[in-house]
Amino acid sequence: MFQSFATTARPEQGPPRLARLREALAAAGLTGFIVPRADAHQGEYVAPADARLAWLTGFTGSAGFCIVLPDRAGIFVDGRYRTQLRSQVDLARFTPVDWPETRPGDWLRAALPEGGRIGYDPWLHTAREIETLERTLAGSAITLVAGRNLVDAVWQDRPPPPEAPAFVYPAELAGQTHDEKRARIAETLRAAGQRAAVLTLPDSIAWLLNIRGADIPRIPVMHAFAILYDSAEVTLFAAPEKLDAALRSHLGPQVRLCPPDALLAALRTLAGPVRVDPATAPKRIFLELAGAGVEIAPEADPCLLPKARKTAAEIRGMEAAHLRDGAAVARFLAWLDAQPADAGLTEIDLVRRLEDCRRATGALRDISFDTICGAGPNGAIIHYRVTEESNRRLEPGEVVVLDSGGQYLDGTTDITRTIAIGTPGPEERAAFTRVLQGMIAVSRLRWPKGLAGQHLDCVARTALWQAGQDYDHGTGHGVGCYLSVHEGPQRLSRLGEVPLEPGMVLSNEPGYYREGAFGIRIENLVVVEKAPALPGGDAHREMLCFRTLTLVPIDRRLIDADALGAAERAWLDAYHRSVAERIGPLLEPAARRWLDRATRPL
Amino acid sequence: MFQSFATTARPEQGPPRLARLREALAAAGLTGFIVPRADAHQGEYVAPADARLAWLTGFTGSAGFCIVLPDRAGIFVDGRYRTQLRSQVDLARFTPVDWPETRPGDWLRAALPEGGRIGYDPWLHTAREIETLERTLAGSAITLVAGRNLVDAVWQDRPPPPEAPAFVYPAELAGQTHDEKRARIAETLRAAGQRAAVLTLPDSIAWLLNIRGADIPRIPVMHAFAILYDSAEVTLFAAPEKLDAALRSHLGPQVRLCPPDALLAALRTLAGPVRVDPATAPKRIFLELAGAGVEIAPEADPCLLPKARKTAAEIRGMEAAHLRDGAAVARFLAWLDAQPADAGLTEIDLVRRLEDCRRATGALRDISFDTICGAGPNGAIIHYRVTEESNRRLEPGEVVVLDSGGQYLDGTTDITRTIAIGTPGPEERAAFTRVLQGMIAVSRLRWPKGLAGQHLDCVARTALWQAGQDYDHGTGHGVGCYLSVHEGPQRLSRLGEVPLEPGMVLSNEPGYYREGAFGIRIENLVVVEKAPALPGGDAHREMLCFRTLTLVPIDRRLIDADALGAAERAWLDAYHRSVAERIGPLLEPAARRWLDRATRPL
Repeated sequence: MFQSFATTARPEQGPPRLARLREALAAAGLTGFIVPRADAHQGEYVAPADARLAWLTGFTGSAGFCIVLPDRAGIFVDGRYRTQLRSQVDLARFTPVDWPETRPGDWLRAALPEGGRIGYDPWLHTAREIETLERTLAGSAITLVAGRNLVDAVWQDRPPPPEAPAFVYPAELAGQTHDEKRARIAETLRAAGQRAAVLTLPDSIAWLLNIRGADIPRIPVMHAFAILYDSAEVTLFAAPEKLDAALRSHLGPQVRLCPPDALLAALRTLAGPVRVDPATAPKRIFLELAGAGVEIAPEADPCLLPKARKTAAEIRGMEAAHLRDGAAVARFLAWLDAQPADAGLTEIDLVRRLEDCRRATGALRDISFDTICGAGPNGAIIHYRVTEESNRRLEPGEVVVLDSGGQYLDGTTDITRTIAIGTPGPEERAAFTRVLQGMIAVSRLRWPKGLAGQHLDCVARTALWQAGQDYDHGTGHGVGCYLSVHEGPQRLSRLGEVPLEPGMVLSNEPGYYREGAFGIRIENLVVVEKAPALPGGDAHREMLCFRTLTLVPIDRRLIDADALGAAERAWLDAYHRSVAERIGPLLEPAARRWLDRATRPL
Repeated sequence: MFQSFATTARPEQGPPRLARLREALAAAGLTGFIVPRADAHQGEYVAPADARLAWLTGFTGSAGFCIVLPDRAGIFVDGRYRTQLRSQVDLARFTPVDWPETRPGDWLRAALPEGGRIGYDPWLHTAREIETLERTLAGSAITLVAGRNLVDAVWQDRPPPPEAPAFVYPAELAGQTHDEKRARIAETLRAAGQRAAVLTLPDSIAWLLNIRGADIPRIPVMHAFAILYDSAEVTLFAAPEKLDAALRSHLGPQVRLCPPDALLAALRTLAGPVRVDPATAPKRIFLELAGAGVEIAPEADPCLLPKARKTAAEIRGMEAAHLRDGAAVARFLAWLDAQPADAGLTEIDLVRRLEDCRRATGALRDISFDTICGAGPNGAIIHYRVTEESNRRLEPGEVVVLDSGGQYLDGTTDITRTIAIGTPGPEERAAFTRVLQGMIAVSRLRWPKGLAGQHLDCVARTALWQAGQDYDHGTGHGVGCYLSVHEGPQRLSRLGEVPLEPGMVLSNEPGYYREGAFGIRIENLVVVEKAPALPGGDAHREMLCFRTLTLVPIDRRLIDADALGAAERAWLDAYHRSVAERIGPLLEPAARRWLDRATRPL
């Protein structure tokens, strides 16, 4: 079982650790220290050795930070985590702060009217983060001091860093060799007059070099840094024991291997301008380059866009993964539907069974994130993760939001289905139908090339808006290919400023959440494609469209068919026909009978 | 008749004037000089005294500029004006340049590899314009030299500046006295720590002081500058002869009058920070303030947003204007429909008759812009203005795009209807129906407060997109109240970044244009309002909606009713019912019978 349901919170561990940190603070001549959740690679998951925020405070959420001062310790978390925080930390010692509503700089100014010296570990904060904080502190007597990590200094039984071996990602699946990728990005650097780029995101490095790893859960990457030169050569900074002979041979002579602690010295020898991404790279990189007088070109990681534009081979891999995953999810749904409504199943039972169905494919490498399975009111908690304590029994008349995905060698999946337990109520059906209309509107959309997610996001919402409803998250995020299930820069949201391009994979997941009552979300993955020309269409206008990758029935019991327009009904029937045709042959007779019923026309 | 159909182009006048300008250039020690279309107030219309670009080149379009060098004169115009340009200027002496595709800085770099000194009149260029140009020229040996206007120096029979008297705009129509407005904006300045604001936009000044003028066609404003102090006092810089005793009494003791040439001296005495809008204020203002060491706060004109949020009185005025204007347009349409399809009417006949209908209301102060009346292929020219030469006879089977508006004391109108002459073709009907679907989607839209035009624009386009079609203009612009028919910052377009707020008036005008064949556009004005709460809607979510102001039938002969959804048909029928109920009582029996037919349910 990949997923765990344990409640790891042990609030009593925090206070003695906090006391030790404060001693170190005083010894270092600092007024305070910032402990972020992030590691040097800014990913969604951290290794146990990097779980400093959880070690210090008990809080295990995926974002947030703690600012420790002599007389108080503010723990900053966003709306998703406010309830969880209160059960995980000792509230007598840690003060919850609503973030981003309260900016850390403003909180510090209020806490330290006389000023002070606030330490931070420049490996764990991006340059932009520190810049923003410095801007908020301008004019105060508070200074930020980059230095060694004081948590590491007092964390006695700190686990070792991850040491999982890396492995080759086949060029047949990637669709390009790493020689080709390095040559292409080097060309980008040369065109911009940049001599090198520093890469600090593990999935950029994994993509660039066609390798994968297992240093953190859910995302198959290796912790590493890299320098890509405009000659297309790469220096890879990674623990040597992770790289076996096969991998070294795959990397070849153009990729030089160095231990991670050689990075800073290598930075100092670079000829500028050197491209570094201020939004993702550690402040430490910037400090070292600036200290050595190396010119910095602050620009986005050059791998982001090429990685987002999937190759034909990657799209084929994603399709294969979705076929396999769709069959597994269909088997799960067939099983669930065969249970009586009062069977007493819980959220955890569903998560276990679903993971079992995926494992039974024989191809599951990991789940792509911890499954979100929320029944009744738990479904309204957008980032809910069930634990033994929160676990809820499914009651007839409720709906369950089930958001999950698998990591397969050929692709990454992410699917949400909302399932009726017994006969759903009219409010649930009405909201489900409106969410479905939004999801269909995105699925059917064609648009002229050049538009970004912010220009398209609203098509998923207008049906809800007409009813005075909405959802407080984006409509879709980018998805990697056997990489992170959340990848940028493409996104289908008000914040998406990058034009969508053919080959980009995104989720299409509108929802609706009524606090304390129920949640709805329907999610398919889609890939951007050139839209075929239409008779009567503008000849000079290049149009794009989405093609849906996910192949799993949508619960017909939750659809108010009369509320759908003819084009919406036609889309759904065609989708279900395609699901039946493509998933059906993979299923055993009982599941196949279920599929035939679940996919019949409205 | 406000509108003229004369072709004013006299290409032969350009060359001798160009020669005189080049002599002045040499005498001034300059390599070149920039002649923009704009005046110091950056509006859409200029007075004859400010028509420098037209005087020099013959080109009469509403945007563009000419860069005169010793050996060439580049005339930069955008896509709207490329055809018109070729008929208006002497192409042996003036070289058309595609703008903004070719940036003036790049053109200058190519033309002057050795560098040079380029003069410009800093009154006629905004600070942002000069900043952008300077950025493109960085690293070249080309320098920009602010100085006196060399066109004015050689323009011997230059007309005098406009001297139209200004007049009071009644506070009952404005909904606020100018005391209230000044006090409110002064409060904004104090909150931002700004000591004063320099106002250079005539419609900001007209709005702020509840005055109107007649210095330029189509927009009832007076040319003036103003300084608003954080005390709510104003110094108004305008020609004294424009301000009679009644107006002076209206302005009262808090508004000090000064001649325009006192402005620069007044700027030098200001205490900073002084707010000036780099996007709209002349570079000259910035140079003077900087030269005097006055701190500048570069920020948007503080009147823009308050002016855009119409008061209840202004909205009542806009409604009254639309009722009156709607009846006038309905009379026109009834007349047009009574003509046989082969009556031999021309575009100019329609423009005249429409203006006559508006004049017959007895309340028309001006048309709000030159009527666009394009039959058949002329309808595909988005900014077409008919002249005696381009005038086209209406042919049966064609459609006519008629985009027009009136300036009334209580409000400004802007309406487009596309009208079938005889029986329309299937392509025209299909495109019209899709444009109508977009227009209805905007009309029916509800959305959560906080969204800007860029987030909503696409709802007007998805029906066209599904057919591979689109239109290359925004969906809507802001509209003033007895001010400019185009006002910012609100807009319904990919460029609209300002959240829409209750009271803002916008146009809703999707279209479709097939070059050489036909054009379609349907336009109503709408006002943003708080949407009434709905049962089942999110209680915490404030929703906004549009209410339609324009009341004129939409041509039913062009609608493919089967292609509309039930909600779309219901909207159109309800709209037509409301048009009949509200316009009907104002019409004479024959026009009323036409209206009843034109507004019957689909």
